[in-house]
Amino acid sequence: MAGVSVATASKALNERGSMMPQTRERVQAAARALNFRPNAMARALVSQRSFTLGLLTNDTYGRFTLPVAAGLSEAMVDRGVSVFLCAIEDDPERARVNLDAMQEKCVDGLVLAGKRVDRALPLDLSGLSLPVVHVYSARPPGGIGFEPDDEAGAALAVAHLAGLGRRRIAHVTGPVGFAAVPMREAGWRRALAEAGLSPFGEPLSGEWSEDFGFRAAGLLFGPETGPERPDAVFCGNDQIARGLMDALALMGVGVPDDVAVVGFDNWEIFAQATRPALTSVDMALKEVGRQAGLTILDMIDGKRVEPGTRRLPCRLVVRRSCGGAGG
Amino acid sequence: MAGVSVATASKALNERGSMMPQTRERVQAAARALNFRPNAMARALVSQRSFTLGLLTNDTYGRFTLPVAAGLSEAMVDRGVSVFLCAIEDDPERARVNLDAMQEKCVDGLVLAGKRVDRALPLDLSGLSLPVVHVYSARPPGGIGFEPDDEAGAALAVAHLAGLGRRRIAHVTGPVGFAAVPMREAGWRRALAEAGLSPFGEPLSGEWSEDFGFRAAGLLFGPETGPERPDAVFCGNDQIARGLMDALALMGVGVPDDVAVVGFDNWEIFAQATRPALTSVDMALKEVGRQAGLTILDMIDGKRVEPGTRRLPCRLVVRRSCGGAGG
Repeated sequence: MAGVSVATASKALNERGSMMPQTRERVQAAARALNFRPNAMARALVSQRSFTLGLLTNDTYGRFTLPVAAGLSEAMVDRGVSVFLCAIEDDPERARVNLDAMQEKCVDGLVLAGKRVDRALPLDLSGLSLPVVHVYSARPPGGIGFEPDDEAGAALAVAHLAGLGRRRIAHVTGPVGFAAVPMREAGWRRALAEAGLSPFGEPLSGEWSEDFGFRAAGLLFGPETGPERPDAVFCGNDQIARGLMDALALMGVGVPDDVAVVGFDNWEIFAQATRPALTSVDMALKEVGRQAGLTILDMIDGKRVEPGTRRLPCRLVVRRSCGGAGG
Repeated sequence: MAGVSVATASKALNERGSMMPQTRERVQAAARALNFRPNAMARALVSQRSFTLGLLTNDTYGRFTLPVAAGLSEAMVDRGVSVFLCAIEDDPERARVNLDAMQEKCVDGLVLAGKRVDRALPLDLSGLSLPVVHVYSARPPGGIGFEPDDEAGAALAVAHLAGLGRRRIAHVTGPVGFAAVPMREAGWRRALAEAGLSPFGEPLSGEWSEDFGFRAAGLLFGPETGPERPDAVFCGNDQIARGLMDALALMGVGVPDDVAVVGFDNWEIFAQATRPALTSVDMALKEVGRQAGLTILDMIDGKRVEPGTRRLPCRLVVRRSCGGAGG
């Protein structure tokens, strides 16, 4: 239709080779008129690239994986790369079936996304020759991982409370077996030290649940508590903060006037529903997913990528519960 | 390695053609020894099928899409079909880019999954020759849709309350502009009529939020309420139920002794965290996703599929808030 050879048409459509601009434009106009689509499968066979990635996740709720997937997809779609979603839950057999499927589909790389930074997905990666990045999950030695900088995020929250004049800042957090717990505790201690404050007692450690937060409020503010009470509580996640605030409301303790509360996760469905709305640390997981995607593209392109874990910055989302926002 | 022709090897591996069982077994053993994997892209070129589906969703939280995707993937992986995830939010431009990507990847079909049954995704499907199914979103005339049977689900909840002896069953629900609202209201009315009960007033309609549930409690149980109070509240979603129950706790109204509460969605992160845990209608979205996947496979296989919307059954998950469970 454009009166050129197949080779010339290919060069024109792929923006390669040298030719008269008019020729290139004529081919591209013909392609548009014919509604021509390059056959991705044929191109994949020739280039030995499928322009696909596999995202394997055991995070059933999608609390962590959804923003990671959103950031990953956003970075990929503009580069012509599409992402397969494989929900493997915690089932090694389903993990294996999905891993086989991804190899059969000739994905160019794999993103493994978990729900805690200290656990690997139940996958046997031995003998796998694909580029792999690990997101919000444990990486093997020499592997490449992406996670939020929990310690710095916690320090951000506690420094904000100290900056608002709070002096007795308690910490209520999850089970000590989770790596996130000592990291967030370290951030609490560091920010307190930098503000010249002492920790308000030892951290209260329990479940990552509203129920534990509810009970922790009784320990900190109940009738058997001594005269010394916290004027701020930094919570290890938003669910703990939610339960704590519900209990404080029932006890008649005012937030933020009597006590400021800050959570961790910025899970908006919780953080915006507390009364008042909850200040919380956002792990910026969408950006974590985007960075993981850009890195795996580099690996696919054969660029050298340093092994190790990248810890990306969190940000503090200020709402009314800390007493620092106007709203 | 097996001492047979390429054609025989292909037939042996694809379980086609007639040959001695020993020959087939010899080829398969050689394939295992060589760790042979069929090249999915080459097979796709030959068969004109890519064994891939595109899942396009505008449900950012993943509240609805995650269980749909889990059911879809589970049904697909055993059939060698993998699913591309495309998060388009509500952005028509991003929707177009993702739709183009899915066409370029030669997907065999598209599943469009939304976050409300009465809104279509922001996609121009004209000129598209692929099989498409619509899940938890509006379908065009002649299209094929899958959604939960909201009316029957609501009736299930209200019949359960009536069966427990509740007689004054109120309904607190979302904005009237959502199709789910009149459907759930119709189920409430039908179950009441079948139990010989009258509606307790008109439904209270507001936002799908905890905040609205919190305020609705004041309207139903506050100091300015008349002597007649509900002994049960059927809520249009779990967030409304959560806000209502939090307000009841502050007002000293006991759940379930003074009033039974039932939600809708069975969003476990809410339903298990209320005090007491919330009885709720589960829309069985994983099964919705599975059925949608099996249907699109039929369409890809050229089977005739009736147009129209399939409404699949909900189930009631009984917890302590309705007073009917032992736990």
